[in-house]
Amino acid sequence: MKSTEAGEQKLNKKKALAILSSDALSSVAYGPEQILIVLMTVGMAAFWYSLPIAIGVLVLLTALILSYRQIIFAYPHGGGAYVVSKENLGMLPGLIAGGSLLVDYILTVAVSVSAGTDAITSAFPSLHEHNVIIAIVFVLLLTTLNLRGVTESASVLAYPVYLFVLALLVLIGVGLYKVATGQVDPDLHASFGAPVAGISLFLLLKAFASGSSALTGVEAISNAIPNFQSPAPNNAAKTLAAMGILLALLLSGIVLLAYFFGAVPRDEVTVVSQIAEEVFGRHAMYYFIQGTTALILILAANTGFSAFPLLAVNLAKDKFIPRMFTVRGDRLGYSNGIIILGLLSIVLIIAFEGMTEHLIPLYAVGVFIPFTLSQSGMMVKWLRDKPQGWVTKFIINTTGALISFIVTMMFFITKFPQVWSVLIFLPIILFVFYRIRSHYEAVADQLRISTCEEAVPVEGNVIIVPVAGITHVVENSLNYAKSLHAHQVIAVHVPFEREDEAIFEEKWRKWQPDVRLVTLHSPYRSLLAPLIKFIDTVERKAGESNYRVTVIIPQFIPKKGWHNILHNQSSLLLRAHLLYRRDVIVATVPYHLKK
Amino acid sequence: MKSTEAGEQKLNKKKALAILSSDALSSVAYGPEQILIVLMTVGMAAFWYSLPIAIGVLVLLTALILSYRQIIFAYPHGGGAYVVSKENLGMLPGLIAGGSLLVDYILTVAVSVSAGTDAITSAFPSLHEHNVIIAIVFVLLLTTLNLRGVTESASVLAYPVYLFVLALLVLIGVGLYKVATGQVDPDLHASFGAPVAGISLFLLLKAFASGSSALTGVEAISNAIPNFQSPAPNNAAKTLAAMGILLALLLSGIVLLAYFFGAVPRDEVTVVSQIAEEVFGRHAMYYFIQGTTALILILAANTGFSAFPLLAVNLAKDKFIPRMFTVRGDRLGYSNGIIILGLLSIVLIIAFEGMTEHLIPLYAVGVFIPFTLSQSGMMVKWLRDKPQGWVTKFIINTTGALISFIVTMMFFITKFPQVWSVLIFLPIILFVFYRIRSHYEAVADQLRISTCEEAVPVEGNVIIVPVAGITHVVENSLNYAKSLHAHQVIAVHVPFEREDEAIFEEKWRKWQPDVRLVTLHSPYRSLLAPLIKFIDTVERKAGESNYRVTVIIPQFIPKKGWHNILHNQSSLLLRAHLLYRRDVIVATVPYHLKK
Repeated sequence: MKSTEAGEQKLNKKKALAILSSDALSSVAYGPEQILIVLMTVGMAAFWYSLPIAIGVLVLLTALILSYRQIIFAYPHGGGAYVVSKENLGMLPGLIAGGSLLVDYILTVAVSVSAGTDAITSAFPSLHEHNVIIAIVFVLLLTTLNLRGVTESASVLAYPVYLFVLALLVLIGVGLYKVATGQVDPDLHASFGAPVAGISLFLLLKAFASGSSALTGVEAISNAIPNFQSPAPNNAAKTLAAMGILLALLLSGIVLLAYFFGAVPRDEVTVVSQIAEEVFGRHAMYYFIQGTTALILILAANTGFSAFPLLAVNLAKDKFIPRMFTVRGDRLGYSNGIIILGLLSIVLIIAFEGMTEHLIPLYAVGVFIPFTLSQSGMMVKWLRDKPQGWVTKFIINTTGALISFIVTMMFFITKFPQVWSVLIFLPIILFVFYRIRSHYEAVADQLRISTCEEAVPVEGNVIIVPVAGITHVVENSLNYAKSLHAHQVIAVHVPFEREDEAIFEEKWRKWQPDVRLVTLHSPYRSLLAPLIKFIDTVERKAGESNYRVTVIIPQFIPKKGWHNILHNQSSLLLRAHLLYRRDVIVATVPYHLKK
Repeated sequence: MKSTEAGEQKLNKKKALAILSSDALSSVAYGPEQILIVLMTVGMAAFWYSLPIAIGVLVLLTALILSYRQIIFAYPHGGGAYVVSKENLGMLPGLIAGGSLLVDYILTVAVSVSAGTDAITSAFPSLHEHNVIIAIVFVLLLTTLNLRGVTESASVLAYPVYLFVLALLVLIGVGLYKVATGQVDPDLHASFGAPVAGISLFLLLKAFASGSSALTGVEAISNAIPNFQSPAPNNAAKTLAAMGILLALLLSGIVLLAYFFGAVPRDEVTVVSQIAEEVFGRHAMYYFIQGTTALILILAANTGFSAFPLLAVNLAKDKFIPRMFTVRGDRLGYSNGIIILGLLSIVLIIAFEGMTEHLIPLYAVGVFIPFTLSQSGMMVKWLRDKPQGWVTKFIINTTGALISFIVTMMFFITKFPQVWSVLIFLPIILFVFYRIRSHYEAVADQLRISTCEEAVPVEGNVIIVPVAGITHVVENSLNYAKSLHAHQVIAVHVPFEREDEAIFEEKWRKWQPDVRLVTLHSPYRSLLAPLIKFIDTVERKAGESNYRVTVIIPQFIPKKGWHNILHNQSSLLLRAHLLYRRDVIVATVPYHLKK
């Protein structure tokens, strides 16, 4: 960790709140709507149930905020669900949490971008039929930006979040004022408390589970404590509290307005858009609200991209995913991760046809499984360490774990048709994790000096130089080959036509009389097949006297990078083939062109 | 050419007809419909004009068949439009023909697959909304098959063509019998010769141009003469004649039936499907017709894939496209070409939303431009060579050239909104062709021994071995390095943590006391940056005394290929960077794992 910190600027509370809560706060753009979608199945008269359900969600929010506050102080170096679960519950629960999160980052991108697109197409209905394309363009944009290295800490990213909060607070304020002053037709909303035919506990639980999708993202702050100014844990805890209050305000405001204005979930227009239109009409303020909503949702998608490498380093250190993810400075793993993330979220968007409400159950399950595991991990930690006042702490995390567990179960029970795939993907991911680890361990075993036999010393070298013509590139490579004091240097040429063969041999004798030339006629226009066959023969003979074979590939390097697609394709193939299939050393001698 | 022939089996006439005419014969599945689509704009009363227009198309067909018959005898080694135009008209016309054809292979795939999908969704209307997805799946399938090396000469590919011809002949026979015996309501068809309001010469020309899209693909046989059994030109000419007769039969049959049964072009059901349903009802024979139609169209798409490498070899020999396309035996260029072809045709299918009639004008223009150029080339050839009986030959090709030119112009005049993009893409392609050629020439200039200064001999070598740990891989590489008698061997280690540094140095001193070790602490977890900086320093010093620097990369090769994604990522990056950016030799020493 130490080595990465140095490169980043520390966050103050105001900036941290903006940057780390875009995921959580943006959830209010789709969370309340999910409650109504479930209630609508028994009729609009049931909409008044959204109010008690919202209160339930707020209780859940309070429990989660208090639980995460404790994680912040217990894991000041960053308490991701993977680390907390692994340290306290063991490897398997840790991996379940880690695996869920990996999948969840893909869903964060897919859900947030889809919801952001909904906000835009609600404002411009003619774009509605192009939803999927617009969402894909946004993902491609985010992928490109992240590949080029936009970091979460860029200051510009803070404005949209505050603008979004401001826009929604104005909407809620003006909206509630209109309701209070009787400017809203009371017939619009279902009467509170009226009995509704067909309502059931199952349905209410389903609506509650759907509504809790508004809480996705609250874990972000506890993962990023090392990025805070010191005292980091205190500042992080205060930021978490502020985020909790904002989220509670926005959530209850939107639910109340949706109820009073009688918003009905529709495919083409989001609930927030309906409310904004009712309150302000389709004027500047409406477009401002839709714009900031879209913007914060795109930012929330971005958190998927930036959270991935943090988790990946931890998984790679434990050898469950490829080692390249540990070398953060060279951005190789990082780039691969970003591309995979972008591609898979595009696949999800296409598969679900960009319909946010179908993606959300999967997303929420992927969030609440690690929630449950990390809270349970904290329970175990308190029981084991028993610090001062551990009973209160234990009770808080137990409450958090229990509620998270109940919500997870509710998703599996009430929305099984939408979330069953988690039960298939998660075991597959765990299997892959374990396979990768056991492969790394097998390799380490074979490479360890103590356990294997002594390496045989090299007695001498035979050098093969494939030559395409009589050029400066070849001359350069031959000069290098001669300087290595090898036992033998052989030049090899592969002509496609018999006539070319004799001409070339003649020219060669005049140019390099002291280097032996072998020509291999290739009637089927293959360069590699005869070359490899020849190298095999030489290698077999050299191996008998413990000589090593080195193939020197002459290669000219054009001035501009893209020119490479016009050259060197065959040497690329040859190098790859020799390296992976044969036991010869491959050396490339570059000749840099000047223009 | 000689070298490729040997690997392929020669085609007899029956097989050649099947394999080489799928593109042309399949055109009758969409050609007649295109005429009706244009006539429909003034009303169904105008449908009787489809009969005289079809006669015009048949005249055009006759002219083209006669013209291509002459090309067959004049260019017995294969007279692609590129070769014929280049040799007789000059480089620029040749490249225009070649460029048009390159684009056209993409369109062959897109049009044929879209039309094949139409045949399927006509039979199963519930699939209609998934047209684009189905078409994409077919393209992916063809791409995969071609990458795996399905050749045009596979015998199975012959059956669908004969089945299709059989199916359509039965359809035409039974259909015309029903018409003749008065089983078809005479009110169904517009009365022949009746005046139609709104008809214009412009519209008729447009309908004629559209109908001539049924002739795409007639050039295939003249490109493939070397594949015929000897006497190749005679056999090819006979096959061409047979194809012309079949095409004429099917085309006139379908146009007649469409007229008598009063088929009206519709988005969801093709004209052939409508006729088949009228004649047989939705029974076995109907599904047989739709099935063979879909199959032959997919086969026609396949000709795009197999024609591409033939053209590519010719363009690559002249250095207008990357050289890799000349090395046919190693299939590198071939594979790249297939992937690019597949991807671009998918892009076209998505962009045109799988609507065949919107793709066809572009496709037809791309076909008739090379038609015109190769016929004009033949005119020039006869004028220049003046062989026996050249006047007749000249007249035939002049007729062919004129009609092709007129059809091309008709497309530009009557369908400009759909074909203007050709005028943009073609110049861009020509520009790229010339840029690639001038780049190759510049490179050849620099590499030619005679024109440049003498290479400086190498005085000695410095070898750098980056080491990740004390393992057998490193031991193996160090043994090799020592065997090269270099001036100096330096091992370099990059630890991320200060503590690791001292421990490693201590271990090294005990293990390899005679090899100098340099450690480069990297606080930002980058492996490459410090390594490259060090190599740069060594290279600068070595360059002063004309020593060359060799970086030896120890690399273990896992047993299974896919394991590589778990390893060696950093060495891949290092190798690429050193090779393309620095003037050092990069040698990779493989250490093959046994399990």
